[in-house]
Amino acid sequence: MNLTVVILAAGQGTRMRSARPKVLHEVGGRPMVAHVLDAARSLSPQRMRLVVGHGAEEVRDRVGAPDVELVEQEEQLGTGHAVQCAGPEFADSDWVLVLNGDVPLLRGETLRAWADALASSSHDLGILTTHPADPTGYGRILRDDQGRVTGIREEKDATPEERSIGEVFTGTLAVRGKRLGPWLASLSADNAQGEYYLTDVVGLAAAAGGVLAHRVPDPGEVQGVNNRRHLAAVEAAFQERTADALMEAGVTLRDPARTAVYGKVHPATDVVVDPGCQFEGEVTLGAGAHIGPGCVLRDCAIGEGARVEANSHIEGTTVGPGAAVGPFARLRPGTVLEEGSKVGNFVEVKKARLGPGVKANHLSYVGDADVGAGANLGAGTITCNYDGHRKHTTTIGAGAFIGSAVQLVAPVSVGEGATIGAGSTITKDAPAGALTLSRAKQLTRHDWKRPEERAKEEQD
Amino acid sequence: MNLTVVILAAGQGTRMRSARPKVLHEVGGRPMVAHVLDAARSLSPQRMRLVVGHGAEEVRDRVGAPDVELVEQEEQLGTGHAVQCAGPEFADSDWVLVLNGDVPLLRGETLRAWADALASSSHDLGILTTHPADPTGYGRILRDDQGRVTGIREEKDATPEERSIGEVFTGTLAVRGKRLGPWLASLSADNAQGEYYLTDVVGLAAAAGGVLAHRVPDPGEVQGVNNRRHLAAVEAAFQERTADALMEAGVTLRDPARTAVYGKVHPATDVVVDPGCQFEGEVTLGAGAHIGPGCVLRDCAIGEGARVEANSHIEGTTVGPGAAVGPFARLRPGTVLEEGSKVGNFVEVKKARLGPGVKANHLSYVGDADVGAGANLGAGTITCNYDGHRKHTTTIGAGAFIGSAVQLVAPVSVGEGATIGAGSTITKDAPAGALTLSRAKQLTRHDWKRPEERAKEEQD
Amino acid sequence: MNLTVVILAAGQGTRMRSARPKVLHEVGGRPMVAHVLDAARSLSPQRMRLVVGHGAEEVRDRVGAPDVELVEQEEQLGTGHAVQCAGPEFADSDWVLVLNGDVPLLRGETLRAWADALASSSHDLGILTTHPADPTGYGRILRDDQGRVTGIREEKDATPEERSIGEVFTGTLAVRGKRLGPWLASLSADNAQGEYYLTDVVGLAAAAGGVLAHRVPDPGEVQGVNNRRHLAAVEAAFQERTADALMEAGVTLRDPARTAVYGKVHPATDVVVDPGCQFEGEVTLGAGAHIGPGCVLRDCAIGEGARVEANSHIEGTTVGPGAAVGPFARLRPGTVLEEGSKVGNFVEVKKARLGPGVKANHLSYVGDADVGAGANLGAGTITCNYDGHRKHTTTIGAGAFIGSAVQLVAPVSVGEGATIGAGSTITKDAPAGALTLSRAKQLTRHDWKRPEERAKEEQD
Repeated sequence: MNLTVVILAAGQGTRMRSARPKVLHEVGGRPMVAHVLDAARSLSPQRMRLVVGHGAEEVRDRVGAPDVELVEQEEQLGTGHAVQCAGPEFADSDWVLVLNGDVPLLRGETLRAWADALASSSHDLGILTTHPADPTGYGRILRDDQGRVTGIREEKDATPEERSIGEVFTGTLAVRGKRLGPWLASLSADNAQGEYYLTDVVGLAAAAGGVLAHRVPDPGEVQGVNNRRHLAAVEAAFQERTADALMEAGVTLRDPARTAVYGKVHPATDVVVDPGCQFEGEVTLGAGAHIGPGCVLRDCAIGEGARVEANSHIEGTTVGPGAAVGPFARLRPGTVLEEGSKVGNFVEVKKARLGPGVKANHLSYVGDADVGAGANLGAGTITCNYDGHRKHTTTIGAGAFIGSAVQLVAPVSVGEGATIGAGSTITKDAPAGALTLSRAKQLTRHDWKRPEERAKEEQD
Repeated sequence: MNLTVVILAAGQGTRMRSARPKVLHEVGGRPMVAHVLDAARSLSPQRMRLVVGHGAEEVRDRVGAPDVELVEQEEQLGTGHAVQCAGPEFADSDWVLVLNGDVPLLRGETLRAWADALASSSHDLGILTTHPADPTGYGRILRDDQGRVTGIREEKDATPEERSIGEVFTGTLAVRGKRLGPWLASLSADNAQGEYYLTDVVGLAAAAGGVLAHRVPDPGEVQGVNNRRHLAAVEAAFQERTADALMEAGVTLRDPARTAVYGKVHPATDVVVDPGCQFEGEVTLGAGAHIGPGCVLRDCAIGEGARVEANSHIEGTTVGPGAAVGPFARLRPGTVLEEGSKVGNFVEVKKARLGPGVKANHLSYVGDADVGAGANLGAGTITCNYDGHRKHTTTIGAGAFIGSAVQLVAPVSVGEGATIGAGSTITKDAPAGALTLSRAKQLTRHDWKRPEERAKEEQD
Repeated sequence: MNLTVVILAAGQGTRMRSARPKVLHEVGGRPMVAHVLDAARSLSPQRMRLVVGHGAEEVRDRVGAPDVELVEQEEQLGTGHAVQCAGPEFADSDWVLVLNGDVPLLRGETLRAWADALASSSHDLGILTTHPADPTGYGRILRDDQGRVTGIREEKDATPEERSIGEVFTGTLAVRGKRLGPWLASLSADNAQGEYYLTDVVGLAAAAGGVLAHRVPDPGEVQGVNNRRHLAAVEAAFQERTADALMEAGVTLRDPARTAVYGKVHPATDVVVDPGCQFEGEVTLGAGAHIGPGCVLRDCAIGEGARVEANSHIEGTTVGPGAAVGPFARLRPGTVLEEGSKVGNFVEVKKARLGPGVKANHLSYVGDADVGAGANLGAGTITCNYDGHRKHTTTIGAGAFIGSAVQLVAPVSVGEGATIGAGSTITKDAPAGALTLSRAKQLTRHDWKRPEERAKEEQD
């Protein structure tokens, strides 16, 4: 079947109270319209046209793709006019599906079932309908005695009897390609808003030969977003869907309602995720990994059996099998923690490899560094990687022991098995196997008085 | 209309299991009774009297105000007696409204609509009623064939038929001023509890000339708090109300159910708030600001386009436009981050100005300091502001570069464009444009042995 | 009454997609079957037999106890066979209760009420039934005109009329001891699965003399766990139960839905817990203690009036009355904070006593230390407790003042009232009352050029 998909994305969304085009507001970390495009792609359409108005450039920047043609609707003259802008070559297509860019939860499988129904239908128009818990405000589906759709009645025009109808129009419809052009041409803007309403083709189709109504069982799928409350409701439904999929895959979410995924999580089995975690981008979780409460993981891979303790923040990092991170660890892009290594509290690592079994347990900054297997970085270790001009590298050999509060002024190397004395500032390479330090002599001044004593003496 | 508002706040609230007066338990970060006072104020009453019993002093401390007269009910002899304590000059008022200090969600607009209804009523008594989902436990509103209120039936005295009545008394009533005194005088304590029940005036009024029942559409508004579960339910409803208002104003709350406001948030549009944030006191959020997950913001202003990353804690601070904070930053009172400045992970700032473009990215403590534009504070920078007796100031000139692990022993100045070598303890002013450092020579001891080697040799 | 309890814990739980035995998945921080064992214990049974299959060793390790006999079901031939494995001495018991190891919320009090009903029953079989909101999928309880149970009808075999029955079998039953053996022996595996179904004894009992159906009012109590979604639902119900008990005891949970207890909390009154906290193990909370948002408390005691600020992580620690912790503090096992002491942001304490009024407010590591009353540890204080071989102790006398960025290389002592200069590395004991420091002289190099200047000159 030859399909054209038209996606309406020109609405200003004034109730969003936003400077951004409505369809770019995000659900699950992606613009709403990106979800609609993905669902449409699952139909393998011949053509996808995105009708943009307000903020066209921004829409192009965020969701532009080779398979999407953007057409601009310069004046906002209604949905009928928007579809017209996407023309005129509709007659080439068997069917033209008109989707809304602000209905992000509609599933590809729902669209495919609908497309199958359209393919075997003799009608020239198909609509998606649903039965919401409360139909108030929606256009009701009118049917005759034989159950044939005769039209859509808007809430404001409905009789009390019509208002009791539970089946409503979702705003999504499909028109046989050869019919769409003529029907659009016959629309009139002779109404209160002075707009061309696409919905009016339903009446034309009903008169001309009937309408195929296809019901979406879950009304949540066709929830549109017109304000930030809708956005929150749709986000919640999306998160529930995502959490269900993770649990299905064998992840224990200790509180699915407190797990946020703004991207995609690829889990192995027997992962446990504590409440309050947030996943962004692409995150891989190895078998048996445990993610503690309140962690943020963005574009990273957590190895088998690794433990990420509470309130850790990990981005662009590979955490090896059996490694331990946190609590309160910050791993920044370019970090690789090899097997069994450990990064503890108040430690930041950036663009560094920590070899197997390395420990950096307390209050350290490790940036632009390569740390050999089994090395131990004491509390307060700082790699001075930045000279105000460029970044330089620190190399620490396997088995080295860096004392507490040591600064390694890069570029600098610490040899294998070297020991660096606490409190040293290391500016030259430290040889393997030896103790290197920089330290002033410890002195005591017995005659010294504390400021408060001096102040008191001065007062006296 | 001349109004007196009497607020009952004397209840002990034994089911709260608390040493505090019940009405001081907080909703949205404020004592319950403070919400009631605010709602009452919206009526511009001539007089507001707060009847306190248990913990009168504490109530006075928390919510005392010039427009509120506190009257003490020394013996707890029932609600009728409590109102009597608030007298006797009721006859001066057109109406006396009796509100409950433990019903914090009742809106001012609801009270105003009620006051309008009272103003145009010929009855001498008005009651607020509602239809809760489950009326069990509440007093039911009895009406005659003409729909006139004839009385209130307590649950325990109700017939099965009466129990099926959905309309219940909220506990809130209003009495025409001239009637209140006589009616109170006629109350009897001849009941199981030996208390004077205010509710008994409803029967008197019904007999004397009728009762105006005014319905509150949302039963949640009149939910009273008698235990901590009620308190949690009321808090949840309050938070939902607050979140709705923020979304209405153009804020994206990525999870409204995981956003807590214990104070007031003043947002511009297109702010995004990640899950798990907590706002306290007065918080201003500039347009396009992004607040990451798990942040705590208290009495602070976040500038336009600023980013606050995960798990930051900000109090009494001004964050300038385009500034970046966190993750894991702690900004304490008196901090000013100017435009485009950056405070990174494990950094604490207190009573300090960071000029435009200043960076303090890692593991630092900046207190009592003034930092000029574009200065860079290396990892582990510490301003030693406290000598055990007083706090002193550190001044850092524009464009200065402070190496890692530097201590600036205040009072001390670093000149413009100065560089401080890593690991230095700076006790005297550092001149502009030059390199200043304090550093011991780096030495290596090749004969040195690690403790474990020595231990092994001793064993051998 | 002589009781045997048989707990079925052999199911593989393939829908869990897990390498662990299903009954070891945790609810409230404990294996599901541990909850079932506790409920069973409240009946004081003569004998408890746990039938394990898959992962028997792991089950033994986690929940093995002197009062529990583990019997292995080597082949998975159905629930009837599983009970047979727990035999054969059933005839000794008045009743044999068969519980499911994957139904963790069944309360002891429910079991006791059931046992009482069994004790006074003339029937030979008892079943637990309930009325779930949606009975779909459950076996329906069939009754005759007199209301006597005649059997259980599985969903798939039920007529539409039978499907409309709201009472369902919970899977939990009890058999009079002398009957169980013969009935088990008469079970047949002549069915699609080739398994011996315990449920079949209900039909036998109904035919033989009747069945006592005992209803569980709350269907949530008998929710079984077959996949991770069930596990999450059961966990949520458990957490709600736990939160209710805490509120009943006088704790303000500012958001009960965002409070997780994986263990047991022992609260005094007027504790306030902010949203997002997680409690593990045994936690005691003193009167008036305030726990800020996002804290993790594991096996610790928080003193009266103590304040734990946001995002603190406390384990194996005693926090004294009026002490202040956090935000971003990490207290590890063996820490004792005495009255009024304070541990601030980015501070880690491990195996250390901080005497009354001690302050360690910023960016420090205090491990294996004893700190006397009133001592002040400056920002960046580090106890160098580890020499790569052993841990050593640091002793700091009362009233000592440790300057910022000081390393105390243990074993080492700082005397009472001593002052340590900022930036010092202290390797020898520092005497009481005096100033001790190690510090290199401050120098300025006026001819020094920044790397970027040098780079520019080289380019020119």
